[in-house]
This record gives sequence, structure tokens and C-alpha cells, in this order.
Amino acid sequence: MKAAVLRDGTMVVEELPDLVPGPGQVLVEPLACGICGSDLHTVDHAHDLVASAKAARSVGAMGGFDPDLDLIMGHEVSCRVLALGAGVEGVGLDSVHAAMPFVLRTDGSRAVPGYDNDFPGGYSDQMLLSPQSLVRVPNGLDPFVAALTEPMAVGRHAVNESSLTAGRLPVVIGAGPVGLAIVAALAARGLEPIIASDFSPKRRATAAEMGAHVVVDPEVADPFDAWREHSDGVTPPVIFEAVGVPGIIDSLMERAPDRSEIVVAGVCIPPDQFRPTLGIYKHLRLTFVLGWTPDEFAASLHDLAEGRIDGQALITGHVGIDGVPQAFADLADPETHVKVLVRPDL
Amino acid sequence: MKAAVLRDGTMVVEELPDLVPGPGQVLVEPLACGICGSDLHTVDHAHDLVASAKAARSVGAMGGFDPDLDLIMGHEVSCRVLALGAGVEGVGLDSVHAAMPFVLRTDGSRAVPGYDNDFPGGYSDQMLLSPQSLVRVPNGLDPFVAALTEPMAVGRHAVNESSLTAGRLPVVIGAGPVGLAIVAALAARGLEPIIASDFSPKRRATAAEMGAHVVVDPEVADPFDAWREHSDGVTPPVIFEAVGVPGIIDSLMERAPDRSEIVVAGVCIPPDQFRPTLGIYKHLRLTFVLGWTPDEFAASLHDLAEGRIDGQALITGHVGIDGVPQAFADLADPETHVKVLVRPDL
Repeated sequence: MKAAVLRDGTMVVEELPDLVPGPGQVLVEPLACGICGSDLHTVDHAHDLVASAKAARSVGAMGGFDPDLDLIMGHEVSCRVLALGAGVEGVGLDSVHAAMPFVLRTDGSRAVPGYDNDFPGGYSDQMLLSPQSLVRVPNGLDPFVAALTEPMAVGRHAVNESSLTAGRLPVVIGAGPVGLAIVAALAARGLEPIIASDFSPKRRATAAEMGAHVVVDPEVADPFDAWREHSDGVTPPVIFEAVGVPGIIDSLMERAPDRSEIVVAGVCIPPDQFRPTLGIYKHLRLTFVLGWTPDEFAASLHDLAEGRIDGQALITGHVGIDGVPQAFADLADPETHVKVLVRPDL
Repeated sequence: MKAAVLRDGTMVVEELPDLVPGPGQVLVEPLACGICGSDLHTVDHAHDLVASAKAARSVGAMGGFDPDLDLIMGHEVSCRVLALGAGVEGVGLDSVHAAMPFVLRTDGSRAVPGYDNDFPGGYSDQMLLSPQSLVRVPNGLDPFVAALTEPMAVGRHAVNESSLTAGRLPVVIGAGPVGLAIVAALAARGLEPIIASDFSPKRRATAAEMGAHVVVDPEVADPFDAWREHSDGVTPPVIFEAVGVPGIIDSLMERAPDRSEIVVAGVCIPPDQFRPTLGIYKHLRLTFVLGWTPDEFAASLHDLAEGRIDGQALITGHVGIDGVPQAFADLADPETHVKVLVRPDL
């Protein structure tokens, strides 16, 4: 098989031995795999990522990842079934799926392809998955767009975990892939108005395309002024933090209206500073979120299939496996891309 | 009048001109005033306190406090009415009240006696209040115990603002006055078991007396092991942070079970460090709280009056105004005192 491999902080492309599905496993061919911001972080901060997961005793997420060994990333996957391991039933050869990135081990624990040295992710032309991780792509949905299911589920989960109720306006800070997925999930719920903020003109335009009604350039306007203009000025907003850099939580705590909820959906890996008194004086709530549930994953696939989320609007590039190292470099510039799909067929 | 004055970081006792109630104001004699941990902090960190309130744009709380001027602190007050300003009706001379520490100004804004250079707090034998800030002490309640209404309301508010629901056990970290008020509020609700943790033997004993069922010395045991032992091990606890020192929030985020809520009731004034990834991997929620509502204040007074909270158990000392400076020094040692009442009559 062919794969883009992270080795010692560098992306390289290699031919590797073909995979063989073990008992209970399914061998698939990735049709498309989105490049996720977390993967970009992992190139530079793999050791920090593993250390932070260990500190949280979240061995489930990173337990199979030794950052000193080769890693094949990619966890936003649509795929076609190539072969079934012993004992697998009810999965059709050639059937097309969106894949929740997990493989059940015989002891019931889960490996996470893309973050496990033993299980390649989607930057490859072969992957092993479990039958339970496959969600059939409905007829009529472009299988490439189905690769957006995972990031869209991240946005849906952030919204579901929030305290959004009638009258509380959502303010989305950052319109990278996570922020855009949150905007899309809010719009799919029919919420209005949705306020979104980003320094990048391209991302602001995409936020509007995904359903944001009020789009703010924080260089020239304050998203909370937009909130004051469009709300009763009292019922506190739900702020979605989708930037994930040091200092952003404290900055939002300083600017947030009293009794705001800040949903922390951006992933800031290094330790951060904040002023607890800002939270205390303002009665703020910080709600930290990650990932999605299987129900949220399936619902996001249907949002894409039924057009409640326009997945095509998010896809700004397609590259073959050979193009992955260059795509990683290109994604540093927010004006170039929103979501790049890795397509082994290219 | 006589008062204990904070001047340039030192507590001094002075005779000052008598107060005269302005229109709409009530002149009272404090019967008892509890010494609050915030007041101890204010001696050393007055400038930080004001700066943090300003950063939160919470001018309501500290807008009348210039830390370079004299301040008479004290905001946990029971009092007797001495005289009425022009236009005050429905308040009986000599009537006894628990006092919410505010004075309505003519423009509708509020001054906070005890944190306002122009309005003395309860470490004095005279105070000005508004009729709206007085809650009549019910017959049969010791008026000295009624001074505990304010700190008990702080505990009740922390519990009310939390996500406590059936099956979520409360774990109270720190059994100083705030932690004990939280334990008391939980016990008044009939919740069981209540887990509390403190390094001090005296505070652990008081926590048990206030209604904690499981009391942990964190030097020798982990309060979250106690949670695991007494819970189903899955339904996440609500953790009440009542320590308020730098590092405690990060430490609790590291030790908290997945999906815990951490209610931040301790007031950590300096900026603090934390690892957002701990919150993200564990789906934690941080809920910051402060103060109380008038309803919570009144309900706490009735908890004390009807014996649902044993106020006497919290009172470990009485001092006259002359004794305030020494009491501030003594309160640095958690083995000496829980709550000291300043009694102008002594």
C-alpha cells in the first residue's frame, strides 16, 4: 500500500506492505480523507499531544501512539470495502461508508486509526476498520463529500453539548474547519441569527456560505458588538471558541458578556494562562468539548446527504497521496484552503 | 463612630465622625459582622482585586473602591435600626435585620458597604444601608448567628448555579468558610452522601458537623477515590472548588473524573495557569460563581432560623472592634478559627 507517513516531524510518502484484515476487521480503500487541523498540529507537537492526553488519563485517544515511531494520520474518511476478516458479516464488498475512526480490539478496547502506530489512517490507500465503525453513505451523496462527516460531527457535538436555548445567540469565534462545522450545525438547526468572526476574508466568506447571518472581521469590529446589536443585550450568548491558540480563552473571558457560556472547541495544546476572576465576576461557564457520539456522526452524514449542510462549499482542494506533504505546507495559509481532501485515486 | 480601618495595607482602629442617614437611607448599628476571607485577601491584594474587577468591567462590585484611600470592610452583617433618612417608610426603629450589603444611590446604582470608601462596612458600630437591603431576622434566631446569612447564601448560590442532579455526587474541595457554606447548603437540601476534603483537622471536623458524610484528608487519601467508592463510578461528580489559590483549578481538572463539573467558588485573584487539553479530553465544565440573589439570601436566613443550618457550629470567636487587627492575624491559621464575628458591643 501507499501512504503519507509522519516520521520525526516530517511527512514522507512511501510504499508499504499491504494490510490483511484480522478476525473481526474490515479492509477498506479510503476514497477521500480530509486533512484535519489536529494533524497539522501533530507534525510539530506530537510529543505534547501525547503528554496532554496522558495527563488527562485519556489513554483511549492516544494510547496507541508513540510519537517516536512512524504514524500514518487521517481520520476524516469515506471508504469502499475491499475485504472482510474472519467472522465479519453484514458488510457488503464494494459498499461505501463514512468511517468512524476506530478499530475494536479483541479485549473490547479501541484503537484509533490515524493516531495509532499500528493502524494507518486515511492518508493511505488501505485501512483496517471494524464493521461497527462503518456508516453506509446514502444514495445520491458524493462519496468524497461523505469524508466531511467526521468534522461536521465535531461541530454538531459542540452545539449539542452547549447550553443553547431560545434567545441565546451563538457567536462563533474562528471560522477554520471547526468553526465552520459549528456554523453549519447551527444553520442545520435553523438557528438565526448566527454570528461568526474570523480575520481571514476567505473564511468569513465561507462562514456566510455555510449559514452565518452576521460575519465580523475582528480587526475592524467586535463580535460582541454584533451580539449586542442583534440580541436583547441581556440574554447571554453562547460563544464557540474555535481558534485553539494560547490566550484566546482569557481574551474571550475578558470580552464575553456576563453569564456567557464559552464552548471550548478549539484545541490549545500548550498550557495556557487565564484570570479566574474574569469568570467569577461575570458568572461565566467554560464547557470543553471534543469529538462526537455515534448518533451525532450518523446525523451529520444525513445532514450532508439531505443538503442541510453544503459539503461541497467546504472542499477547496483534492490531492493524491503524493501531494500530502505539499498540502500540509499550503494549509498554513488560511487564504488558500478550507478543507483539502486526500484522494488515493489521484 | 468607632471602626477598624484598612489603611495602606494595615488594619487600624479609629474614632470617626458619626454617620447621618441621607434621603432613602437607614442608619444601623451592626450587631455582628463576620470576617470574610475576601477581606483578608484585600489587606494584601487590594490593588489586584480592583484591577481584576475592572478587567471584568464589573464596576458594580468595586466601582466605589479606591485602594489608595481608607476602607472600612465587613459585609456579613446583622444589625439594629438606629435612625431613618428622609422618605424611608416601613422600617421599624430597633428592628433587627440581616443586611444585604448594598446602598441604592439616587441614580439607581449600588454602592457596596465594606468595599466602598464612602460607605463603611460592618467592622464599625454604624453603617448606612437601604431599606431594600434589610431582611428581618425571624423571632428566635440569635441575631449574632444572623450575621452568617451572607456567607451561607454564597454556598447556596454555588449549589444553585451547579448542574447537580440526582446521581451526581457533590465533592467539596476546601472546607474554609466558603466550602463549609457549600456543605451546609447541600445538607440543607438533604443530599447524601456529601464528600468534603481539607488538609486541616479542625476544618474536616467542622465539615462533618455541617453535614458532610465522607470527610477526606487529601494528604492521605484522594477525594475522587472517595467519590469512586460511593458512586456508580460513571455519573460524574459536581466538584466545588472552594480553595481559591493559583494552580487549584488545573490540579482539579487533572484529577476530575470525565465529564465532571467544577464549580469555581474559591476566589483566586492572580492570573493562573491551566491546561485546556485536560478539559477537552475529559469534557469538563467550569462554572464560575460569585455572590447570591436576594431570594437566596432570604432563604439562607430561614435555613439558619429553622435549624437546617447550624450556624453556631461555625462561630469560633467573637471580638470587639479593637480586636479586629489581631483577629485578621489569627485567621491565617486554619486550626484557630472558622468564622470570627466582630461584635461592636464587646
